[in-house]
Amino acid sequence: MKRIRAGVFGGSGYAGLDLVEILAGHPQIDLVFATSNSYVGEPAPGTDLYFVSPAEVSLADVAVIFLALPHKASAVVAKRGVETGIKVVDLSADLRLDTPEAYARSYDTPHPHPELLPTPYGLPEINRARIRHADIVATPGCYPTTALLGLYPLLRFAALERGVPIIVDAKSGVTGAGRKPSLTTHFAEVYGNLIPYKTGRSHRHVGELEQEAHKLDGDMGPVIFCPHLLPVDRGLMASIYVQLNDSMASDELHDAYAEVFAGEALVDVLPPGEQSTLKHAVKTNKCVISITPVLERYAHITSVTDNLRKGAASQAVQNMNLMFGVDETLGLI
Amino acid sequence: MKRIRAGVFGGSGYAGLDLVEILAGHPQIDLVFATSNSYVGEPAPGTDLYFVSPAEVSLADVAVIFLALPHKASAVVAKRGVETGIKVVDLSADLRLDTPEAYARSYDTPHPHPELLPTPYGLPEINRARIRHADIVATPGCYPTTALLGLYPLLRFAALERGVPIIVDAKSGVTGAGRKPSLTTHFAEVYGNLIPYKTGRSHRHVGELEQEAHKLDGDMGPVIFCPHLLPVDRGLMASIYVQLNDSMASDELHDAYAEVFAGEALVDVLPPGEQSTLKHAVKTNKCVISITPVLERYAHITSVTDNLRKGAASQAVQNMNLMFGVDETLGLI
Amino acid sequence: MKRIRAGVFGGSGYAGLDLVEILAGHPQIDLVFATSNSYVGEPAPGTDLYFVSPAEVSLADVAVIFLALPHKASAVVAKRGVETGIKVVDLSADLRLDTPEAYARSYDTPHPHPELLPTPYGLPEINRARIRHADIVATPGCYPTTALLGLYPLLRFAALERGVPIIVDAKSGVTGAGRKPSLTTHFAEVYGNLIPYKTGRSHRHVGELEQEAHKLDGDMGPVIFCPHLLPVDRGLMASIYVQLNDSMASDELHDAYAEVFAGEALVDVLPPGEQSTLKHAVKTNKCVISITPVLERYAHITSVTDNLRKGAASQAVQNMNLMFGVDETLGLI
Amino acid sequence: MKRIRAGVFGGSGYAGLDLVEILAGHPQIDLVFATSNSYVGEPAPGTDLYFVSPAEVSLADVAVIFLALPHKASAVVAKRGVETGIKVVDLSADLRLDTPEAYARSYDTPHPHPELLPTPYGLPEINRARIRHADIVATPGCYPTTALLGLYPLLRFAALERGVPIIVDAKSGVTGAGRKPSLTTHFAEVYGNLIPYKTGRSHRHVGELEQEAHKLDGDMGPVIFCPHLLPVDRGLMASIYVQLNDSMASDELHDAYAEVFAGEALVDVLPPGEQSTLKHAVKTNKCVISITPVLERYAHITSVTDNLRKGAASQAVQNMNLMFGVDETLGLI
Repeated sequence: MKRIRAGVFGGSGYAGLDLVEILAGHPQIDLVFATSNSYVGEPAPGTDLYFVSPAEVSLADVAVIFLALPHKASAVVAKRGVETGIKVVDLSADLRLDTPEAYARSYDTPHPHPELLPTPYGLPEINRARIRHADIVATPGCYPTTALLGLYPLLRFAALERGVPIIVDAKSGVTGAGRKPSLTTHFAEVYGNLIPYKTGRSHRHVGELEQEAHKLDGDMGPVIFCPHLLPVDRGLMASIYVQLNDSMASDELHDAYAEVFAGEALVDVLPPGEQSTLKHAVKTNKCVISITPVLERYAHITSVTDNLRKGAASQAVQNMNLMFGVDETLGLI
Repeated sequence: MKRIRAGVFGGSGYAGLDLVEILAGHPQIDLVFATSNSYVGEPAPGTDLYFVSPAEVSLADVAVIFLALPHKASAVVAKRGVETGIKVVDLSADLRLDTPEAYARSYDTPHPHPELLPTPYGLPEINRARIRHADIVATPGCYPTTALLGLYPLLRFAALERGVPIIVDAKSGVTGAGRKPSLTTHFAEVYGNLIPYKTGRSHRHVGELEQEAHKLDGDMGPVIFCPHLLPVDRGLMASIYVQLNDSMASDELHDAYAEVFAGEALVDVLPPGEQSTLKHAVKTNKCVISITPVLERYAHITSVTDNLRKGAASQAVQNMNLMFGVDETLGLI
Repeated sequence: MKRIRAGVFGGSGYAGLDLVEILAGHPQIDLVFATSNSYVGEPAPGTDLYFVSPAEVSLADVAVIFLALPHKASAVVAKRGVETGIKVVDLSADLRLDTPEAYARSYDTPHPHPELLPTPYGLPEINRARIRHADIVATPGCYPTTALLGLYPLLRFAALERGVPIIVDAKSGVTGAGRKPSLTTHFAEVYGNLIPYKTGRSHRHVGELEQEAHKLDGDMGPVIFCPHLLPVDRGLMASIYVQLNDSMASDELHDAYAEVFAGEALVDVLPPGEQSTLKHAVKTNKCVISITPVLERYAHITSVTDNLRKGAASQAVQNMNLMFGVDETLGLI
Repeated sequence: MKRIRAGVFGGSGYAGLDLVEILAGHPQIDLVFATSNSYVGEPAPGTDLYFVSPAEVSLADVAVIFLALPHKASAVVAKRGVETGIKVVDLSADLRLDTPEAYARSYDTPHPHPELLPTPYGLPEINRARIRHADIVATPGCYPTTALLGLYPLLRFAALERGVPIIVDAKSGVTGAGRKPSLTTHFAEVYGNLIPYKTGRSHRHVGELEQEAHKLDGDMGPVIFCPHLLPVDRGLMASIYVQLNDSMASDELHDAYAEVFAGEALVDVLPPGEQSTLKHAVKTNKCVISITPVLERYAHITSVTDNLRKGAASQAVQNMNLMFGVDETLGLI
């Protein structure tokens, strides 16, 4: 079995830490370095490595780099990776939107390397063909991953009522806000609280969510998206409320979901009557979905992931497996 | 100032404990007894009383009783209270539905005392005239209180699109599940979790919620209601998603809410751009509402209460104040 | 009843917020201002005030100032207060140690105003006579308050075995670490964790704890003090393990504690067999103590406070009441 | 590699669930059954099995049984296992005490099968020789495991001052209280709280802790043991305070610990200056120890485990590995 030499940029953030842990246990990976700005010289947990400064590493030493960096910084390293001829798995937002214009709209800044766009969108269950053997892939955000998987069968079967908004009431653990300290993530502010933020359509993830959903169903309505900060460390739930058109009744949905995700090792569709809870997904690499028919033309779908795993690190590794042509779930189940 | 002698049935449950605490601090109340089945002989916190068995108390000793009892048991004591000629504030579900048929549908059991129905529905901000000077009042459930206050201006101005479902994604602290131990409320099951339950239209509170909403707007659509168990002890958030008809644009909503709740001491409407969080309401007697216009005809409303206060105990006291003709907020602000 | 005009410096930290809330409800206080560096212009919760910059306020407007400021900054304002001829209640560490030398040892910096030392140590149950009618008082830290009250009867009766160390294993909620964001107080670092820090004798509070304890019993041994960061927002428990000399057997301790604290409204001694828990004290202004005889000459004492109340804000108000000669518990029970 | 067929009794309690998960991932184990009383017919998480009633299983089908049963019930199945000639790993308290008299003292009931006593005490780092190739082993409780490992070097080197009590202030996550619902484990009672219980010397684990410690150092003093219920799901910290005799100074302790645990894969001794936190051990199979010299003759040791892993399930598997003569850490690292 051929070894794959890998490096991680941004290994000391929450997604980076999970990524390092998963890669350290991956049977075909040799983890060569993990960079950090704040923790240089400290041990990278779960490995024999110590965090190094990004300035110290050589891209020529590895076959693939993972970028768990802030947006804007990430594209710069991605560009260098492409130029070096190695594979690049980006976990930032820099390569998820197809055009520099869309990026500028969502991120209020010009794209650092527009020539990298469009990049294959790394949601394997939906976009596997374009990820396989690609040299660079944009791993989706945690909210879009969870919502898109929850909506995928509806979009693929064009079962949504044309133009009617899709409601996504989402709840995320605090690691989703990153490791940099702020009053928002102060224990005493979060504890015992539940905080809606960037509601309506103002969250930056709405752009990539709608971009990818539209590719599947051009008639879908706009997404109304309200995220909440949950007083837990990890886990993400998207509670989705949809109106169906007359091509499918709500009690036929479960069969559709079961069929679409039948071969997917990293998506579980719960039996009718069971509800996905946060604990179904936390510390796993899976997305877990439950479907509740409410009225004949209305349904409630609950889609759950670990925001740091299927919502970030493990999905990045799933993409890498596809990019190198090895078993997609290697090191993940 | 005339003293009011009061007794509490079910004083050792979570709502009962908050009720006892509020009554003990009420300037016009003499709390005469608090009953309990499991804690007889133990001190009632915040008072000089000890819990007594319900068999030991005499209704003739008091001018008003509060019933924080399970459904079915509560109506029996309510009936005795009515026969004794004292006032009755019921916190159970027994008197909230207007007909024995509706009760039988929601609670799968015949009503113990159908002659008590209909009872005034004790949500003062909506139903104040019928509560004032009443002899018996049904205090609403925590979910209906929070959702109805969040919807009230829309219902009163008939601003909702006719027949379109109203989405209520709700989240409640664990005290909402009662104090009786069960695996559902075991710390290790709830901790780090988020659990949807009785989703769609299967929760018993849907009946009273729709009953009262329909009285305000007969054209409203059905309620799609999904409660979740939050890993916190108290607090309830109703996240409401609505489609408006063309009588009101979403950016006019805030003015409508501000106008409707202008004189209400126990409802706060946050300024535009601010979001209600759980902490706005926890350990207060208020409902706190924020309004977010999303698209021209769609809005997201967040309504928050403390499930044990405005969702139970303090609303019961607010009702009692009205029933005795004293200042509605006495002992509550 | 004569009104007392008061101002708060540092009103937007956690202790400051509790202080503002308590003063707003105090029947004899007119709260004139609350300063903040980070929240100027925002409403001070529970009041009609807005936070102002410290530069904007005039000490001549008030009869008393409360200083919930960082050490070093606090003494400077205290000095100005003294010069203005108003009363000063300091909540910082600046005035707790009797000598500039002791201060320099614990805080690694020269004392900003050594002429203010010594200041009466504001632990009323132990030091009431010196606080009453004083013009300036140093409110103790949360750990020393809780530990000293838990030890007080033993020290007063000289019941501790001479020279044997006193073990204090302490646990504090996260607000004790202040509101300034840091990785230490990041939700995801604290959640599900328990973290010992500054163990042994390295915590700065050891100095004032031993200074005050020695005044009561010069033969006491050194304090071995290990604080832990608890994953809760507020509450502080000091678990104290002591060896007794032969003047008192462990089963006589409860009577001694009951006698010493008999008249104290803000200290509860639990009945034998009951254990103090964090919830006994959280959101109250009390210290709650339980005593467990273990062997004839060994005992375990649990002393609990709310670190922001009896451990800071409410004790400051208790001191102020004494300084103005009004009922010590006014606004506190 | 020879396969080992195993069965679990009591697989649906918290320790049982972790045990089933570990065994399912063990490279040499075939997990044949997991019994449950309350969850018969439900899937055993992490496996292809369904929980079965204990009455349905045949001991002859397996080479080893694990007993995660309540005390008294466990010894009865252990006896049957012995009679069947298979190996028995008991996780209950039934076989930990060496004599029926000691059992009767700690558990207030006669021992169900005194002929099984004494059984080798299954703490491999201390008692490996007696566990290896044994047919029946008693896996220690979570508190004794954590405290004994924290004390082991001191006991082995006879470094404790003769007769002086050893203070163990312990804190445990809620899973330590078992999965059976009770008010003690109700989320709303535990949340935001910290609760001392069975303090002094009244906890049942004191017996086995002192029994095993005395075997190592007959001169040690009594253990003063105070456990607390922590508001987290898993993790156990023993904070140990000891007085040394003049054979070893406190600053020599770290070397002694490092030497004693040098070859132990499941015990980590942290570098001087670092403190063990709950997160060092949670969801791992390790015990993590830090040592703080306080005064020349006094030290503070913090020993941490996951109460369900090294404190129960993973230690049971470690014992089984020894009993079958395979690598002690197989399936555990």
